[in-house]
Amino acid sequence: MSISATQTEQHRQQFPALANKAYFNYGGQGPMPQAAIDAINQAQEYIQTYGPFSTKVNSWIVEEVRQTREAIASELNVPTDTITITEDVTVGCNIALWGIDWQAGDRILLTDCEHPGVIATTQEISRRFNVEVSFCPIMATLNGGDPAEVIAQNLTPNTRLVVLSHILWNTGQVLPVNKIAQVCREYNSRIQILVDAAQSVGLLPLNLTELEADFYAFTGHKWWCGPMGVGGLYIRPEARESLQPTFIGWRSITMDSRGKPVDWQPDGRRYEVATSAFGQYCGLRAAIATHQQWGSAKQRYEQILQLSHYLWQRLNELSDILCLRATPPESSLVSFQLKQKQPGSHKQLVQYLESQNMMTRTLLDPDCIRGCVHYFTTTSEIDQLITGIESYCRK
Amino acid sequence: MSISATQTEQHRQQFPALANKAYFNYGGQGPMPQAAIDAINQAQEYIQTYGPFSTKVNSWIVEEVRQTREAIASELNVPTDTITITEDVTVGCNIALWGIDWQAGDRILLTDCEHPGVIATTQEISRRFNVEVSFCPIMATLNGGDPAEVIAQNLTPNTRLVVLSHILWNTGQVLPVNKIAQVCREYNSRIQILVDAAQSVGLLPLNLTELEADFYAFTGHKWWCGPMGVGGLYIRPEARESLQPTFIGWRSITMDSRGKPVDWQPDGRRYEVATSAFGQYCGLRAAIATHQQWGSAKQRYEQILQLSHYLWQRLNELSDILCLRATPPESSLVSFQLKQKQPGSHKQLVQYLESQNMMTRTLLDPDCIRGCVHYFTTTSEIDQLITGIESYCRK
Repeated sequence: MSISATQTEQHRQQFPALANKAYFNYGGQGPMPQAAIDAINQAQEYIQTYGPFSTKVNSWIVEEVRQTREAIASELNVPTDTITITEDVTVGCNIALWGIDWQAGDRILLTDCEHPGVIATTQEISRRFNVEVSFCPIMATLNGGDPAEVIAQNLTPNTRLVVLSHILWNTGQVLPVNKIAQVCREYNSRIQILVDAAQSVGLLPLNLTELEADFYAFTGHKWWCGPMGVGGLYIRPEARESLQPTFIGWRSITMDSRGKPVDWQPDGRRYEVATSAFGQYCGLRAAIATHQQWGSAKQRYEQILQLSHYLWQRLNELSDILCLRATPPESSLVSFQLKQKQPGSHKQLVQYLESQNMMTRTLLDPDCIRGCVHYFTTTSEIDQLITGIESYCRK
Repeated sequence: MSISATQTEQHRQQFPALANKAYFNYGGQGPMPQAAIDAINQAQEYIQTYGPFSTKVNSWIVEEVRQTREAIASELNVPTDTITITEDVTVGCNIALWGIDWQAGDRILLTDCEHPGVIATTQEISRRFNVEVSFCPIMATLNGGDPAEVIAQNLTPNTRLVVLSHILWNTGQVLPVNKIAQVCREYNSRIQILVDAAQSVGLLPLNLTELEADFYAFTGHKWWCGPMGVGGLYIRPEARESLQPTFIGWRSITMDSRGKPVDWQPDGRRYEVATSAFGQYCGLRAAIATHQQWGSAKQRYEQILQLSHYLWQRLNELSDILCLRATPPESSLVSFQLKQKQPGSHKQLVQYLESQNMMTRTLLDPDCIRGCVHYFTTTSEIDQLITGIESYCRK
């Protein structure tokens, strides 16, 4: 059963941020549905009314955290105990990166499209544990070539971890995580896979068990349109016992009758630390529920693809614009350049568009502008963006 | 100039959570003033209206974070660049604990009153780096003896770090941090001091520069009455260059023109990671401002002392109750026991009190109940608690 444009138009009304702009920055941050804002406010009110610190509120928080973990696990099609709730995607990557028992001479292989924060973490691990860090040329496979083949060519006997993004944040390319995981395991069953899923969770329909990555780090505030400050990490059940907790607090441990630490929590909680903005967790759950009301993860992804194809096609009609992809996008992210660009040109165009209430962003490598659509983007928003770019280029 | 009871009564009206209860759990979590709740809501509205992700919102967040860091630094009387904003006090402790260049054979000395999360972190560091972890008997100095002397007796040539709480969360004892820091440095200038300041920030008037601790980790959601999910870490300027960042993200680093990591941020930001619940930062700033409106840090502390003395004295009048302290409290925390206690007795009393809208909590070691007052606690609230305990004991 297809979802009508009218239904989508009604659905959009639930996102206050969309009322006054044409929005294309879902890869930076998603707009919160009113239900998520309300859930956060109601959580705040509950906490202040019955606490803030009391037996009743503490039990309530335990239950809210449990339900949030379940909602996340359900969307990712994995058992609840595989999920660690984190502050953001980068914390999730750090938990995986610091939890491995590094030995001098081990090697980390990253793609050349990873986020600077993750690169910096691997560099610090390299310094501390005398681990080698290498990059392989995946960006060049955007319009041809096989990313799994590039990874395969860059494996070495000392490679211990491969770090890649499921969707590249700069070009929007979707990497074949499952194929890459298999290629790595065939080469050496000891190799583990860490996926930066900042751009894939909430965009792609996912079954993480089938994906076979060991660590899959994500955030709730981009494609799920939840609040800032809540993300998570999936850890493959087989990988848990070998991954040691690093940042540790009362949430990580079990205690004896005198409150002394006894053991790790048996599940994903062992990598959680201490007090978080728990009210935000309720917001994320409400945001996920809002998307489910519109349609299944598959339906949302299909709609995203239709809209990103439309955006890509319309951009291709503009004589001043070059899309990075030569073929239609396989995700939501559409990156493009001004054909006649000078340093700062893309920033100027983004600022011009923002002054006209159209939100896009620049990226530095490759030097480009990125536009993202969500399942509730409208073609008229896209048309407006095209007109905006045209009028800038005509100036 | 003294502050009148009427002024305090008016001031209390700003804390919605105080309307329906007698509250004694400030050491667990402080009630948020309405101004803090409003600041968070306004931040949310700003972000949704002008973003959520846009040039304008991103610049606004940078400025809000800067102002929050300044407000924290100002309350602690330290330069702004010494402050790292964290999710909570435990993350702050972890940043210090994991940032030290541990060598096999080094030793960590903790008091016997530290929080289980911090103990568990030192145990994991012990396992990973072959570091020794020892505890020294500070709890026994509550009613006599010199904590600095106990620490001095427990130093050894391989002691590298001393971990202590400024105010012990179980007994409320205030440890002489400055004296302890001096004792340690006289013994060996290499020893560093990590302070768990969960119970002291927002309670004691503080000048961290004079205190001479190397690392001072705190939270905003207890005595400052800010939202959950915002805390911080002060790092003594002399200690920064030797403390390596562990969990790392885009906030930790400077980048080149292609967005690649180049160096650490020059200041406390190098230990911050990535996207946080930034709206909560505005809430913390508003909460701090609310306290400043009532009086100076010194005035607030003096009022807290008057009220905790009153609570201690009234508890002492109860024949069924034993206060852990033989002399009046030197902080806000007043811990007490039922003289005729059985396993679970304290929990029952706390639950009875909560059913009567009076919030206290149990602690496990020593087995006791803890009541805390803030500067805006009233004597009638304390009287109500005493009546509640009396009526429970008479049952």
